[in-house]
Amino acid sequence: MKEAIFSGMRPTGSLHIGHYLGVLENWKILQENYKCFFGIVDWHALTTKWQDSADLKAYIEEMLAEWLSCGIDPKKSTIILQSLVPEHVHLHMVLSMLTPVSWLERNPTVKEQARELGIEEQLTYGHLGYPVLMAADILIYKSKKVPVGIDQVPHLEMTREIARRFNFHYKEIFPEPEALLAEFPKLLGVDGRKMSKSYNNAIYLKDDEKSVNEKVASMITDPERIKKTDPGHPDVCNVFSYYGVLFKSELFQVRERCEKAQIGCVDCKKQLAKKINEILEPIRSQRNYYLSHKDMLWDILKSGSNSASSYCKNTIREVYEAMKLNYPI
Amino acid sequence: MKEAIFSGMRPTGSLHIGHYLGVLENWKILQENYKCFFGIVDWHALTTKWQDSADLKAYIEEMLAEWLSCGIDPKKSTIILQSLVPEHVHLHMVLSMLTPVSWLERNPTVKEQARELGIEEQLTYGHLGYPVLMAADILIYKSKKVPVGIDQVPHLEMTREIARRFNFHYKEIFPEPEALLAEFPKLLGVDGRKMSKSYNNAIYLKDDEKSVNEKVASMITDPERIKKTDPGHPDVCNVFSYYGVLFKSELFQVRERCEKAQIGCVDCKKQLAKKINEILEPIRSQRNYYLSHKDMLWDILKSGSNSASSYCKNTIREVYEAMKLNYPI
Ligand code: SF4
Ligand code: SF4
Repeated sequence: MKEAIFSGMRPTGSLHIGHYLGVLENWKILQENYKCFFGIVDWHALTTKWQDSADLKAYIEEMLAEWLSCGIDPKKSTIILQSLVPEHVHLHMVLSMLTPVSWLERNPTVKEQARELGIEEQLTYGHLGYPVLMAADILIYKSKKVPVGIDQVPHLEMTREIARRFNFHYKEIFPEPEALLAEFPKLLGVDGRKMSKSYNNAIYLKDDEKSVNEKVASMITDPERIKKTDPGHPDVCNVFSYYGVLFKSELFQVRERCEKAQIGCVDCKKQLAKKINEILEPIRSQRNYYLSHKDMLWDILKSGSNSASSYCKNTIREVYEAMKLNYPI
Repeated sequence: MKEAIFSGMRPTGSLHIGHYLGVLENWKILQENYKCFFGIVDWHALTTKWQDSADLKAYIEEMLAEWLSCGIDPKKSTIILQSLVPEHVHLHMVLSMLTPVSWLERNPTVKEQARELGIEEQLTYGHLGYPVLMAADILIYKSKKVPVGIDQVPHLEMTREIARRFNFHYKEIFPEPEALLAEFPKLLGVDGRKMSKSYNNAIYLKDDEKSVNEKVASMITDPERIKKTDPGHPDVCNVFSYYGVLFKSELFQVRERCEKAQIGCVDCKKQLAKKINEILEPIRSQRNYYLSHKDMLWDILKSGSNSASSYCKNTIREVYEAMKLNYPI
C-alpha cells in the first residue's frame, strides 16, 4: 500500500497564485505517488478566527473549488474537512494530556500571530494549543512524511516530540514524521512586499482578466530604467522574477530583450499578464463551475471525510490499546 | 420535562464513606427530582494520571459498581462514561477556541495540583485546560444547576464565564449554571487529618468488617481521657463526629454516656464500627455482585452514554447553528 501523507490548509480566504505554485502544484505530484489526505482544517481556522466563524462555510467551499480547479483530484486523493473527521479531535484530546504547556509556551509563532492579530492579551487556549492539534492531524494518519516549507520545519519538530513522548510512555505506534521539503518558489506581491491578504498585493486565482492586467501593470520594475531606450537590469525586477517562476522557458529571451532595451516595461508586463491569464483562465472557469455546484463540493467533503474517518479509526484503536483504554464495548 | 443536571467523578480510586455521604446520598435525592446525568469522567482522570492510563479501566468498573451499590439507579439517572460521549470532546474543542489562556493561568487549583503531584515543570496542556473540559461537561447538557461543594464554587464561575462569552459572541443558548450547594458533612480521616488516599486514613466502601474494626479502633479520641472513669469531652473526639454524621439519633445518648464516663472509648468505638459495618454490609455485597458481572457494568455505561450522546447532539446542533457552522451535510 502507498505511504500515507497528510497536509492541510486553513480556510481563511481566497488562494493566490503563490499557493497554486507553492503548494497545489506540489500536491498534484504527491497525489500520484502517495496515499494523500488533504485537509481543509476548519478547527485551525477557528483558533485565530473564532469570532468570524460565520465566514467559514463560504471559505471552505471556495477552498475546495480552488483545489479542484488546480487539479487536486478526489479520485486520487482523499479530501477531508477536519471537523467532519472526529478522530482528529479525539487524538488531539489524548495528545493534550501528555504535551507539556512549556513546549507550547516556547512556540514563537503563536506569540507572533497573537501580536499581529492584536490579541496578545486574549490569546485563547485553543490558539495556544494549535501545535497539539497539528500533531493529531499528522499522527492520526501515521504519516511518515509531511510536505512543508522550510519555515514550517520547527512546527513539525513539536509533532515529532509529541510522537516520541507517546511512543516512550505507552507503546511505539507513531512514526516520527519527517519533512518532505518542497521547493516553494518565492513570489513576492505585486508591490514587492511579501504576499499578504492585508496588503492586497497578491494575484488571486479568482481575479478576472482585468484585475490581473491592472495588478501586473502596477508592478515596480527596474527603478533605474526611466526611458524605454535605457537598458534594464532584470535581476532587480519583480516582473522578471515572475517570469522566472512561471515561465522559465521565456527567461533567456526576456533577459536579453530587457538588457538590450529591445522591449519596454509596459509591453513586458502586458506579455506577463497575458501569460498569467492563460494559466488562470481554465482555473477560473472551473472554479466558477464548482462554486455553482455546491452540493457536489459538500458531497466530495462528506465522502472523503467518511473514508478518512474509517481509516483513522484504526489509529484510534491502536492508541487506546497502547494506553490500555480499550474498554470492552 | 425535568431539568437536566450533570455531575461527575474522576475514576482515580476506590470511594470512601465520605464520598458516600457527601456526594452519592445527595445524588440519590437529585435523581428523584431531576433529569440527572452522572458521569465517570475518564478524560479528567487522564489530565493528571495520563501515565497511569492502564489503571483506568478497573477504576471505572469499581466506581460504577460502587455507585450502583449505593443506590444510584440507571433507571432513574443516565450514567455515562465521558469518553463514550464524543459530544463532550467536541464542545470542549469549540470552547477552547474562545477561552483566554489568562483565565486558566489564574486558576489556583491547577497549580496546587501540579505542586502536589510534583509536576509543576511538566504541567500538561490538557491539565491546564481542565476547566474548559468541565465547562463542556456541564454546558453540553445545558444544566441550569450543578451540585457542588462550597469549595468548588470558583470552578463553576469559570464555566459561567465561558457560557457568557459564547452567548455574547454568538447567540444566547447556554444557561449560566448555578451552584446547587449540598450540605456535605465533613468527615475527617481516622487519623484526624483530611481524608486522603495518600494518608490511607479513610474507611472505604470496599473495606471488610475486620478493616473497619481496625480503622475505627485506631481512631484518636479525647486525649484527656486516660482512664475509663475519666469523663470524656465528645466535642473534641473524632469518633463522636462520626456519630454526628452517620448516626444522629444516637448522638444524645453517646454524649451523655461519654461525659458521665458510663462508656469506655473501646466500647464506644466497637459500637461505631458495628454500625458502620451495618451500613457497609449491603453495599459491600452488592459491590461484589456487580464486580463479578462486569458485562452488566459495561452495558450500563454503553446504554447510558448512547442515550446521553443523542441528547447532547441537540446542543451541538444549536452550537453549530449559533456559530453558523451548520454545514450542509
Ligand atoms: S523589460 Fe521586463 S524585465 Fe526588464 S525591467 Fe522592464 S519589466 Fe523588468
Ligand atoms: S467515649 Fe466515645 S465519644 Fe467519648 S471520648 Fe471515647 S470514643 Fe469519644
